Amino acid sequence: MPRYMDIHDGFVGVTQEQFEEAHRHDLAIQDEEGVSFDQAWLDPATGRAFCLSTGPWGGGGMRIHERAGHPTEQVYELAVEVS
Amino acid sequence: MPRYMDIHDGFVGVTQEQFEEAHRHDLAIQDEEGVSFDQAWLDPATGRAFCLSTGPWGGGGMRIHERAGHPTEQVYELAVEVS
Repeated sequence: MPRYMDIHDGFVGVTQEQFEEAHRHDLAIQDEEGVSFDQAWLDPATGRAFCLSTGPWGGGGMRIHERAGHPTEQVYELAVEVS
Repeated sequence: MPRYMDIHDGFVGVTQEQFEEAHRHDLAIQDEEGVSFDQAWLDPATGRAFCLSTGPWGGGGMRIHERAGHPTEQVYELAVEVS
């Protein structure tokens, strides 16, 4: 299934606890779009967050983020990956 | 040790093989800055790549990327993380 990275801006000063809370809102409804939010990271100094997900299409994760209260339009389909 | 995400632009149409080759150049010299490049992803349609690393400071990874031939100045320190 395709993997996606999305970027959120504007999370300056957000704490670990607040970020986990936001993530929980995604997890609670992700099944409704067949999405799995796998990992997420935040740089609280710049307010930029990164969210790695898998799902049938990129729009599904964006719908979940929007419904969870933190919409973004910056999403990238990761057709190439190394680890 | 701090974790970092860096962004590279301009990799439109880069293949899995080419991306792995670029990554190998990083891995070959990463120890010289005490950096570990852990994962990397690419959206070849937009040319944007994401690179997750750990290291003593963000500049170390950027030095490695520069020496490996793919410099970037877009680096974020990921003080907050969920998985």
